[in-house]
Amino acid sequence: MPNFEAIYSKNANNMRKSVIRELLKLTQQPEIISFAGGLPAPETFPVEDLRQAADRVFTKNPTKALQYGTTEGDADLKAELIKFEERQGVRLGPENLLVVSASQQALDMIPKLLLDPGDYVIAGRPTYVGAIQAIQSYQGRILGIPFSPENDGFDLVELDKRFERAKRDGKKVKYIYVIPDFQNPSGICWSLEKRKALLAFAYKHDLLVVEDSPYREVRFLGEHVPSIYQLDQHGENRGCVVNLKTFSKILVPGARVGWVMAHPDFIAKLVIAKQAMDLCTNVFAQMWLTEYLKTGKIHELIGKTCDNYRVKRNHMVEMLEKHMPKRFDLTWTKPEGGLFLWISLPKYIDTDAMIHKAVAEKVAYVVGSAFYFDEPEHNCMRLNFSYASKEQIEEGIKRLAKVVSEEIAAHEAGPRGQTHPEGM
Amino acid sequence: MPNFEAIYSKNANNMRKSVIRELLKLTQQPEIISFAGGLPAPETFPVEDLRQAADRVFTKNPTKALQYGTTEGDADLKAELIKFEERQGVRLGPENLLVVSASQQALDMIPKLLLDPGDYVIAGRPTYVGAIQAIQSYQGRILGIPFSPENDGFDLVELDKRFERAKRDGKKVKYIYVIPDFQNPSGICWSLEKRKALLAFAYKHDLLVVEDSPYREVRFLGEHVPSIYQLDQHGENRGCVVNLKTFSKILVPGARVGWVMAHPDFIAKLVIAKQAMDLCTNVFAQMWLTEYLKTGKIHELIGKTCDNYRVKRNHMVEMLEKHMPKRFDLTWTKPEGGLFLWISLPKYIDTDAMIHKAVAEKVAYVVGSAFYFDEPEHNCMRLNFSYASKEQIEEGIKRLAKVVSEEIAAHEAGPRGQTHPEGM
Repeated sequence: MPNFEAIYSKNANNMRKSVIRELLKLTQQPEIISFAGGLPAPETFPVEDLRQAADRVFTKNPTKALQYGTTEGDADLKAELIKFEERQGVRLGPENLLVVSASQQALDMIPKLLLDPGDYVIAGRPTYVGAIQAIQSYQGRILGIPFSPENDGFDLVELDKRFERAKRDGKKVKYIYVIPDFQNPSGICWSLEKRKALLAFAYKHDLLVVEDSPYREVRFLGEHVPSIYQLDQHGENRGCVVNLKTFSKILVPGARVGWVMAHPDFIAKLVIAKQAMDLCTNVFAQMWLTEYLKTGKIHELIGKTCDNYRVKRNHMVEMLEKHMPKRFDLTWTKPEGGLFLWISLPKYIDTDAMIHKAVAEKVAYVVGSAFYFDEPEHNCMRLNFSYASKEQIEEGIKRLAKVVSEEIAAHEAGPRGQTHPEGM
Repeated sequence: MPNFEAIYSKNANNMRKSVIRELLKLTQQPEIISFAGGLPAPETFPVEDLRQAADRVFTKNPTKALQYGTTEGDADLKAELIKFEERQGVRLGPENLLVVSASQQALDMIPKLLLDPGDYVIAGRPTYVGAIQAIQSYQGRILGIPFSPENDGFDLVELDKRFERAKRDGKKVKYIYVIPDFQNPSGICWSLEKRKALLAFAYKHDLLVVEDSPYREVRFLGEHVPSIYQLDQHGENRGCVVNLKTFSKILVPGARVGWVMAHPDFIAKLVIAKQAMDLCTNVFAQMWLTEYLKTGKIHELIGKTCDNYRVKRNHMVEMLEKHMPKRFDLTWTKPEGGLFLWISLPKYIDTDAMIHKAVAEKVAYVVGSAFYFDEPEHNCMRLNFSYASKEQIEEGIKRLAKVVSEEIAAHEAGPRGQTHPEGM
């Protein structure tokens, strides 16, 4: 057998296995109630409509659907995307659009285009693990910015301070990565003020903003806030925001189709990168989703999905309030959209260690530490509320509350029972 | 507008636009007969069978098909791939397989895993442009090896010589990239002896072989030769061959599904790379092709495709013999499979310059220079014979022969008429 380890690139040696994907294997035993995945609710999938849409592709233009397509993406799909975004107040031409094999591909292309080894990306602490992995796979680094206590976006004082320090230290910051709508993992939605402030910061320091918006349409409470991409369009229109969207959370993930909105020059460069990465996105899937979009049913579908998730989210929050110990240092976010909420536990609880006890109790979460590039927090966890049923949410939160209560009790029983003997 | 050029990475600055994709745009006027693309013949697509297979996915397990899937690839598809390869004498377990978003994705992942900037890959002169682009996009370099005059594989004397010189010069060679079956662009098929010799070379120098086999099953003349992957399995079984396959040429390209066969350790590393690149390949497409494979019809389909291509290839060769000037320095390969043949013209003809004359005559080819990493040959061209109809092949070759004849006549008319005034 060849000595593979000896020939791997620095990129390869820098790649980190997804903790989440490993966790998912652990939690695939049927008795486990898993809040660990990031799966949309399968009951929202419009199976019959998608079957008919697929069939129309075979009737109308099978030869095109089965052949190679353009790297830029199918023109008819782009036309539908332009209409879809227009309803939200976003103005686009086809030259502003690239169809991608879902957002993760864009998250891979962007650091490839922008990062030399050691270059920095500004991102939240915590942030989406798939973005961290992609950045690491090009030897990029992350300048982590904590969120404000109000959970309305970055702590702007920290942003300024950390950016200035990084500049002084000679660090090269290439772009800002944010998920302003119902962030993965925290569920945080940025306020309008914070969005404006971030754009002003980007303008001031001539930085690109990569705005990742997989959950943007999945708002089940409160009012829509303009995207940073929109704020730039309606502001100085500098074209310094790259916005990533996907059908994974508003239709189905299995089709693997997403889109990038950006300045035409950046789109043109992405196209060159994509040529060498996969030639083109699944042509059949592009035409299939186009046929579905033409029915206009996606708006009703998104409404129904939001209704579904509102019920589940409310139920999870209710169950947390009912079953979790009531303490100032045990809190959770109450997201107005998306798929996740974030629990902060007393400092002495290490969710990395606790996961084994949770799995023994047949409940699973994602350890908070997975969402940090460096110096991870260990007293947090991400819970998904979109996939489990209401009954599972009730039972799962009971189990989780039991595990957490036991951890707290063990700590409070004194040094003998502590998992982390503080002050020793 | 932000100054994008100022922030691109070295990877990005090293990316080369696909000459072919640019050419394709040029040749999309309907009157042009294009031998430039690399498209399979649409009349081979089994539309009705695929429609039924897609419908079965919706009937049997739509929820799975529309949800996220594993990065490794669908287990049922893997089972079908194992059977498919077994018929050709290849032994595989699921741990030897990774499903990819067609071969180009594997061609991108491999240099990402193996190349640091400045590292070398041994590859043919000429070789597949998409492989060159992917290698360049990680700042890799190619140590080009010419083919033997017998068109049966690398010139082994040159391979040894160039490899030893590279080693002396301190160049780090990481792997060998070859397309032994009906190479793109040349159509060359490696002899058994040359395959064995290349494997022995890889064993001797402890090098990985990346064997790209998109056309392997598309053999319409002659006898099958074992793949290098098979030769290793039946030989020392060192696991040093990575074999890339795809459905693009034997079924349909629009589904964007391919597979990698390799040592389990290398597959595991590819999985980590793929997680950060697209999470998973189109789940619906994987299940759709699985349903089609279960019908067993692919073997008959491949037979029919080969029949189709044999007729077209024979016709193209016949037309070349009939219409091209008869000269010792004007030759073409006569491939026994695949989609392409390769024409070498008199040294003074520059196919890069001639393409404009060809397009004016309403015929197109791919300039040979596109297939070289460095020091390109300019007197060659690639012709595709799978896409055009028999009538188009006849008319197109007539037009092309006219352009070539005029180039030769202009050159022979003396210095005034020469495109490249030699000896001046």
